[in-house]
Amino acid sequence: MHILIIGAAGMVGRKLAQRLAQDGTLDGKLVAKATLHDVVMPSAPIGASFESVLLASDFSLPGEAAKLLAGRPDVIFHLAAIVSGEAEQNFDLGYRINLTGTMELFAAIRAIGDGYHPRVVFTSSIAVYGAPFPEVIGDEFFTTPLTSYGTQKAIGELLLSDYSRKGFFDGIAIRLPTICVRPGKPNKAASGFFSNIIREPLAGEDAILPVSESVRHWHTSPRSAVGFLMHAASLDLNLVGPRRALAMPGLSVTVGEQIEALRKVAGDRVVARIRRLPDLAIIKIVDGWATRLDAKRATELGFTTETSFEEIIRVHIDDELDGKIA
Amino acid sequence: MHILIIGAAGMVGRKLAQRLAQDGTLDGKLVAKATLHDVVMPSAPIGASFESVLLASDFSLPGEAAKLLAGRPDVIFHLAAIVSGEAEQNFDLGYRINLTGTMELFAAIRAIGDGYHPRVVFTSSIAVYGAPFPEVIGDEFFTTPLTSYGTQKAIGELLLSDYSRKGFFDGIAIRLPTICVRPGKPNKAASGFFSNIIREPLAGEDAILPVSESVRHWHTSPRSAVGFLMHAASLDLNLVGPRRALAMPGLSVTVGEQIEALRKVAGDRVVARIRRLPDLAIIKIVDGWATRLDAKRATELGFTTETSFEEIIRVHIDDELDGKIA
Repeated sequence: MHILIIGAAGMVGRKLAQRLAQDGTLDGKLVAKATLHDVVMPSAPIGASFESVLLASDFSLPGEAAKLLAGRPDVIFHLAAIVSGEAEQNFDLGYRINLTGTMELFAAIRAIGDGYHPRVVFTSSIAVYGAPFPEVIGDEFFTTPLTSYGTQKAIGELLLSDYSRKGFFDGIAIRLPTICVRPGKPNKAASGFFSNIIREPLAGEDAILPVSESVRHWHTSPRSAVGFLMHAASLDLNLVGPRRALAMPGLSVTVGEQIEALRKVAGDRVVARIRRLPDLAIIKIVDGWATRLDAKRATELGFTTETSFEEIIRVHIDDELDGKIA
Repeated sequence: MHILIIGAAGMVGRKLAQRLAQDGTLDGKLVAKATLHDVVMPSAPIGASFESVLLASDFSLPGEAAKLLAGRPDVIFHLAAIVSGEAEQNFDLGYRINLTGTMELFAAIRAIGDGYHPRVVFTSSIAVYGAPFPEVIGDEFFTTPLTSYGTQKAIGELLLSDYSRKGFFDGIAIRLPTICVRPGKPNKAASGFFSNIIREPLAGEDAILPVSESVRHWHTSPRSAVGFLMHAASLDLNLVGPRRALAMPGLSVTVGEQIEALRKVAGDRVVARIRRLPDLAIIKIVDGWATRLDAKRATELGFTTETSFEEIIRVHIDDELDGKIA
């Protein structure tokens, strides 16, 4: 089995490649080769028994997407994106990567023809929803994004469903919750603080909280996100039918509940490292985001996530901190 | 006031231009100029007191959309589309006109900058919905199109909302019901028979019914469709908010009810001209279409339509047949 990851230098892409290296299989089949692509050169996963081909390019440019498909990968994970905050600031860049890039990729898959019919797993986002919301967002709630990023993801979902319906590939779009605790340095996502207020204090650093503690949001761990991708790549999509965009399960908590979970896991000393500094731009963006979903379809299809925010924090401590709190 | 109609040679475009010529005003302002564009040369409306500029081009080609905007129209009606049946048969053509064309137009408006902020009225369609449906489709039901045409319209709506939110223009997308009774010759729309079974018998011709009489669908007259466009161009969009795609009001009737209305208006002799000839391709497409909506938002915003199918038939007899039945 040959796997292509587009966006392989990103946090989720790296963890996915590492998981494939660890498992050695996907959907019970041996992974023989992984093509890892990003706009910057990705690194090969450690300890893989398969060959890793590393590529760097701008896949939104004409002809570039076709190069990624030269080895006719069986499974394509499309994780590449300009994140929400940056896509909002840079309209042209966001549309070029998040929309044109996706369109070029899908068109390039179709152009191969000759019976080529890969599985395509596309990471969408809860940013496809826009306020005002019902108490709980169900599987049939409409997509009225309030950011360009959310718009681009919603369009990607529509294209993926149409290309799948026409038989050009077998696609599934998964709407990821906000990923928490995001390891490493902050990126330009407006949602960064949800992770910063946990990760930095656990590492002995101060963190800034730019919104009120009453802000409620929808989370999953990086480990669960990789689990969603693996499951989406393995699932019988006949069970999914023509509606190929699925909201993933998550955990709905307020910032206050996040902080209390941190207190339970790591104590007052760690919590004291969170500093309040309201940021009106962040407050305005976050105000339009989804707070609670009922991911009924995905749950029935076997997608699973954490059941408490303490569990999400412990996943971070296990996976990123070797079990140690500063 | 300068008005641009893209798709001005189509049935709705022609009727809209004629209505503007008749009224002489839009939203209480004098129409000074109309730019009428289509892929084939449109004709000027009869009896207009304003100047009509007639243009033919493929607006999806680079640079063509900008030419349509040279006179900086105050209101842009974007009606151009490859219809559902043809977009389904010709994937590339449908995407090029219905998606690339729309993207080129929106980008060209944005590129003018300099405070240019026209009203953009985009005709979307109930084809953005895909079965299975609830008993009644509400304003917050999601868009899961089952045709490429519906996909392209849903994407156009998303782009229009995002461009409007970013302040590049002031857009509104109106989801038209199937237009019935469509005058003239059949086009390639899969929905053509809904009109054929009324129009042809009234003109003394036989018509083919390719589906069962139990098929339920959502209709409005050409006169109401033009009314929607005029209202959409005049409406204060602050009342609409960021969710710029609105389902238009319509009338939900079965084919059997259409036929009984025809019988009431025109008698058994006319109804006898309908011949049953099932077409599996049409049956399959129509099976995925919306049957009944609750267009609550649009109704509250003042959009109106007919209240019985007899009224729809009488509109056709008045507007197209000079009141005479063959």
